[in-house]
Amino acid sequence: MYIDEPLKKYLDETASGSPTPGGGSVAALAGALGAALTGMVCNFTVGREKYKDVEGEVKQILSEAEELRSKLLDLMVADTQVYGQVSAAYGMPRGTEEEKKARSEAIRSALKEAMQVPFEVAVCCHKILKLNKPLVEKGNRNLISDVGVAVLLAESAMLSAVLNVEINLSYIKDEKFCQETREKLQPLVVESGELKSEICEKVKEAIGAVLI
Amino acid sequence: MYIDEPLKKYLDETASGSPTPGGGSVAALAGALGAALTGMVCNFTVGREKYKDVEGEVKQILSEAEELRSKLLDLMVADTQVYGQVSAAYGMPRGTEEEKKARSEAIRSALKEAMQVPFEVAVCCHKILKLNKPLVEKGNRNLISDVGVAVLLAESAMLSAVLNVEINLSYIKDEKFCQETREKLQPLVVESGELKSEICEKVKEAIGAVLI
Repeated sequence: MYIDEPLKKYLDETASGSPTPGGGSVAALAGALGAALTGMVCNFTVGREKYKDVEGEVKQILSEAEELRSKLLDLMVADTQVYGQVSAAYGMPRGTEEEKKARSEAIRSALKEAMQVPFEVAVCCHKILKLNKPLVEKGNRNLISDVGVAVLLAESAMLSAVLNVEINLSYIKDEKFCQETREKLQPLVVESGELKSEICEKVKEAIGAVLI
Repeated sequence: MYIDEPLKKYLDETASGSPTPGGGSVAALAGALGAALTGMVCNFTVGREKYKDVEGEVKQILSEAEELRSKLLDLMVADTQVYGQVSAAYGMPRGTEEEKKARSEAIRSALKEAMQVPFEVAVCCHKILKLNKPLVEKGNRNLISDVGVAVLLAESAMLSAVLNVEINLSYIKDEKFCQETREKLQPLVVESGELKSEICEKVKEAIGAVLI
């Protein structure tokens, strides 16, 4: 679904008045685009005489970037599927007290499961940022602006995913669960912001950029 | 090209060792994703009784967001095409002084034309951010995290496009042209950053987000 369909169709369905794909799915796709650019920089480095000293390391980065790209595309689809489960739980009967209780339980459980998708997207985007730290130094210099774009997109995809985690948490009335989730994500959010700034600074210096 | 092909193919070709699509094209696609989410929020607002007071304004935002999405998809493709012209200019003969001069002229001219694509992407992304300023107040509250994602992606797409303008400027040895280009873009970069912060702050407050 989506992956093998025309690119324009995904965008049309996003813009439409149907609930999926929405921001969570789009965040995963933006992360996958960051992973793809990371892979591109590696593919222009591996096999070049000039970069043979870093070939082993860059091959490893390429392999991890490709794995993250594939995982993020799966999450892009998964995000549209878990939404259906949340919807179904909200649609459960609530005539009797017992039904109300069962419905509440089902909603909470579906929301917790739905939240795992943007949570995983955030974890993957953080990994993409980490891969680009050595790559900005060792990758093919002609593609340094692509490192910059990879990093800008991965960080905004990470924050977008975190927004989707937060919107789910706002519906889950389970303080302990919310706190534990935030404690897991917080260091990744902070480190991602630092990595973005650090790597972008290097890109900016390398190309003599004035505007950003 | 690309638009009617499977989404996965665009990502595969980006990650591959072929020069296009690269960061410039991906920046345009990220902007188009931001425009699509902007449109989605509008489509969940227009036609609802609760939002009938803002219907006219939101319809106008929808129409502009859809135009920007279409333009950004065109730019996504255009970016891969202008690259070919730059490549062709670099491939021109440089045996005689006359050939060298003609080649330099052709390269400069192709680079200036190529730069127009990310320049336009930046202008479009700035417009998406402007559309979301009223939308964060007036759009369907259930989709406020989608406004956040639209804004995060549009701003990173804008900065990505600006990086691509800068990399082109770094090859164009024409100080006056570079300065004029930067003077046109600078206010858009500054305003985009401000709009992003302002709108994200409102999203954050609305959903009680802690992490971002």
